[in-house]
Amino acid sequence: MGRVLCCGLGPGDPGLISVKADRAIRAAAHVAYFRKKGRAGQARAIVEGMLAPGVTEYPMEYPVTTELPFDSPGYIDALAQFYDAWADRLAGLAAGAEVVVLCEGDPFLYGSFMHLWTRLKDRVQVDVIPGIPGMAGCWNAANVPITWGDDVLSVVMGTLPEDDLVRHMATADALVVMKTGRNLPKVRRALAAAGRLDEALLVERGTMSGERVVRLAEAAEADCPYFAIVLVPGQGRRPEVAE
Amino acid sequence: MGRVLCCGLGPGDPGLISVKADRAIRAAAHVAYFRKKGRAGQARAIVEGMLAPGVTEYPMEYPVTTELPFDSPGYIDALAQFYDAWADRLAGLAAGAEVVVLCEGDPFLYGSFMHLWTRLKDRVQVDVIPGIPGMAGCWNAANVPITWGDDVLSVVMGTLPEDDLVRHMATADALVVMKTGRNLPKVRRALAAAGRLDEALLVERGTMSGERVVRLAEAAEADCPYFAIVLVPGQGRRPEVAE
Ligand SMILES: C[S@@+](CC[C@H](N)C(=O)[O-])C[C@H]1O[C@@H](n2cnc3c(N)ncnc32)[C@H](O)[C@@H]1O
Ligand SMILES: C[S@@+](CC[C@H](N)C(=O)[O-])C[C@H]1O[C@@H](n2cnc3c(N)ncnc32)[C@H](O)[C@@H]1O
Repeated sequence: MGRVLCCGLGPGDPGLISVKADRAIRAAAHVAYFRKKGRAGQARAIVEGMLAPGVTEYPMEYPVTTELPFDSPGYIDALAQFYDAWADRLAGLAAGAEVVVLCEGDPFLYGSFMHLWTRLKDRVQVDVIPGIPGMAGCWNAANVPITWGDDVLSVVMGTLPEDDLVRHMATADALVVMKTGRNLPKVRRALAAAGRLDEALLVERGTMSGERVVRLAEAAEADCPYFAIVLVPGQGRRPEVAE
Repeated sequence: MGRVLCCGLGPGDPGLISVKADRAIRAAAHVAYFRKKGRAGQARAIVEGMLAPGVTEYPMEYPVTTELPFDSPGYIDALAQFYDAWADRLAGLAAGAEVVVLCEGDPFLYGSFMHLWTRLKDRVQVDVIPGIPGMAGCWNAANVPITWGDDVLSVVMGTLPEDDLVRHMATADALVVMKTGRNLPKVRRALAAAGRLDEALLVERGTMSGERVVRLAEAAEADCPYFAIVLVPGQGRRPEVAE
């Protein structure tokens, strides 16, 4: 019988896809992925050259958003309808076939797929293959261990209010800031307020082509891409011990 | 020329190793891994059946620790000497050959390999292939998205003092507690104090054989294995928005 199988793609380098997901993607007859209207889509780009001949592709295009702010009721409503419609469509397909859904990084870590998952899990079989989170690709690209010993690692979104950012930045030992993009100036101010700006690294397009790693303090604010992460590596609270 | 290549193995299921690491491990002539004296070692167990015939194995056995507490100066000193000695040995090998070092999960996330990395990086070429962190295998095993929207995720070690645990547990939306093991009773008390015990899941040996997922509130305290993680999934602060 059919199912929906979501494959985590990892940070971007196709060699970082798991053996299991790689196999499922190459064998798939139906492949769905999110993208912005008018874009190729990052998930689709990662699997370029891997899909079988004759595969059917289902680009799931986010509703156009120019007229509405991201957090307005109208936009949130349009998104909910979008997820509802695709959940129906995938459930229909999955009644008789396996549909592979591609998801950047790890699907269960801030992944858009989760919105389909909640709508599908009680209707059809849904399986998920985990992936290397984008952030792990980024600290690898920066060539820096992120946490030592008893370090506390906090992962925060650049979309949070500035004072929330400062509070979390001040209490954690190691930091990952995702969804930097247009939030970069706010993220930078918050890091400065928390006394962590000097240690911060900006990783753009980690493990992808066009990868760039710079000290955040030295980065120009102008144009931060969507695939960008800020890292503050931990220093270790005390020597690590073997167990 | 030679190099040290550390391969992240992911959470335990060999199918979750990346395509790139899988290839490197199968081709390796020299393979090193940490283990406790007298044990097979989890990293070695994951690659069982994958190593090439004629491979040379280097089990790096942690110094025996029964007489000394983990955080005593004597034990920390023994560990430092252990890492020094293996760094010398691997540097010697890597002068003329590629040495693959196996590491559970992602090597740069609380990985023992980092102690070799600091000692080797200015002496020989050292490359790291990231892996799926154990925690991602665990929330996948529990079949639960860990973070939504603007959730803050904090990763804490069960070895932290109880009041530090409570503080971080109370301020983050989603939680991962690693190194639970013998710290489980303390972790449980801290979660209760932070009002998060009811939502907590205990995942033992995620994606490995013998995997077990239970609500922490219902788990017996008796024997928590080393490969165990406590998860508190986030609930989402506000609807996720597409960018
Ligand atoms: C909605 S989250 C999706 C996370 C994904 N499920 C994961 O596990 O990485 C998107 C954010 O992830 C970060 N990101 C993911 N992959 C990245 C990469 N290769 N380089 C830089 N940032 C990345 C960026 O901050 C981006 O805004
Ligand atoms: C020293 S840390 C190493 C982390 C590793 N580098 C990673 O990325 O997962 C060891 C801890 O990871 C957690 N862990 C790793 N893999 C696990 C798994 N498959 N199931 C449960 N816990 C796991 C346990 O809490 C264990 O105490």
